[in-house]
Amino acid sequence: MNLKQQLDSTASDVNNFILSTLEGKPRDLYLASSHYVKSGGKRLRPFIVIKSCEMFEEKVEHVLPIAAAVEMIHNFTLVHDDIMDNDEVRHSVPTVHKYYGLPLAILAGDVLFSKAFQVVSHYGTKAGLPDNVISQLVSKLSQSCIDLSEGQAMDINMTSNTKFSSESQYIKLINKKTGSLFAVSCELGAICALANKTDIENLAKFGRNMGIAFQIVDDLIGVIGDPKVTKKPVGNDIREGKKTLPILLAIKKAERK
Amino acid sequence: MNLKQQLDSTASDVNNFILSTLEGKPRDLYLASSHYVKSGGKRLRPFIVIKSCEMFEEKVEHVLPIAAAVEMIHNFTLVHDDIMDNDEVRHSVPTVHKYYGLPLAILAGDVLFSKAFQVVSHYGTKAGLPDNVISQLVSKLSQSCIDLSEGQAMDINMTSNTKFSSESQYIKLINKKTGSLFAVSCELGAICALANKTDIENLAKFGRNMGIAFQIVDDLIGVIGDPKVTKKPVGNDIREGKKTLPILLAIKKAERK
Repeated sequence: MNLKQQLDSTASDVNNFILSTLEGKPRDLYLASSHYVKSGGKRLRPFIVIKSCEMFEEKVEHVLPIAAAVEMIHNFTLVHDDIMDNDEVRHSVPTVHKYYGLPLAILAGDVLFSKAFQVVSHYGTKAGLPDNVISQLVSKLSQSCIDLSEGQAMDINMTSNTKFSSESQYIKLINKKTGSLFAVSCELGAICALANKTDIENLAKFGRNMGIAFQIVDDLIGVIGDPKVTKKPVGNDIREGKKTLPILLAIKKAERK
Repeated sequence: MNLKQQLDSTASDVNNFILSTLEGKPRDLYLASSHYVKSGGKRLRPFIVIKSCEMFEEKVEHVLPIAAAVEMIHNFTLVHDDIMDNDEVRHSVPTVHKYYGLPLAILAGDVLFSKAFQVVSHYGTKAGLPDNVISQLVSKLSQSCIDLSEGQAMDINMTSNTKFSSESQYIKLINKKTGSLFAVSCELGAICALANKTDIENLAKFGRNMGIAFQIVDDLIGVIGDPKVTKKPVGNDIREGKKTLPILLAIKKAERK
């Protein structure tokens, strides 16, 4: 399989796993939770979890639930962030809060979050992962969730602040908002393969930098992308007053002139 | 120490632990997260965790972080539920979203949630709890969070539905919304004391029934309580169209007449 086929195959496995996990009552709560899972996305983070595990082990089936848990955490942040940013469309469908209303959207995020931690403890044990590995996974995953919330709060503060933000503030922000979940994706895969401490740490650093690079490109797409190609809206960041790198650099250039 | 003194002493220990955990940046995010911790409350759930542990062990210091984690989960639901119910006052102070705005309130809840799981994995290990105990704690705690979200979603559906709700629907709802966290408080304390399976299960049942009874009384206070004595607002449930037991019984009686 080439890389594209591998990515598609992982995405399909991850989607199936998540959708089977997000069954329950009340029905509308679980429909809201699975709204973005059904509407698209590359499943990049779970792919990184699996590839990081594959670096140390041949068999990686047991890591699928952990990979899916990371995607569920990512989805939880998408649902809550869309509320805060008042975004109306994601993956070409109405955002969860626009479609299901604010209360169910908050709860949909909370359920994704709770289910992710349940999956780690439940399937971790089922897959025969040692108990100390499971408590490591919980520790790393909860730390990345703290980082994600701190990053989003920094984003809100930077957006509402009319003062000029520095490039280093931007890097700090996307380190928390995107770098941390890419870092933990690498870490979790390596931890599941019982890799040694140095390898885990190095992979985490690699993941963090990849996440930062990914976010810079994503922010560029948000300014000059072609929605037909990228399927992502253009101009939202400018409208919302976000201080992404391309916007910061444009302001800097304009001020010099 | 009499029971009241024990309760006050536990509350003070739990508050100190939580406040030291909720330090970080951005500052406003952590102020929002600790808003209700500072404004009062009895800390009933952590008290139950500690008392349940004490049934099987003399020394219970190691269980304080786990007890605090349960209170953090409770606080997380208070912050998010207040947004959904559009409540303006709790413990005689403005609710988190009224004081810090909607985005920070959502994030404050998310941080409380994340920190609770981090505390379980981090302090559980530090306190020398076996790894299999920690993964059990995570599993039980995440299940109770799922129950809390499902219960709140049922509450929203029942409130917006103009149809008459039955008493059994109400009991189902408060079982999820209140019973589950009381049940898990008992369970977690007993698990930390390495109690046997039967004792853990019996305590969980006891906790669940206590939670249901507690909620019935709380809902009664919400209709006929004296705010000067209970420090809880009266009439909110009626105004919001909630179908609590006293309201259901009043409608039933009125219809008969």
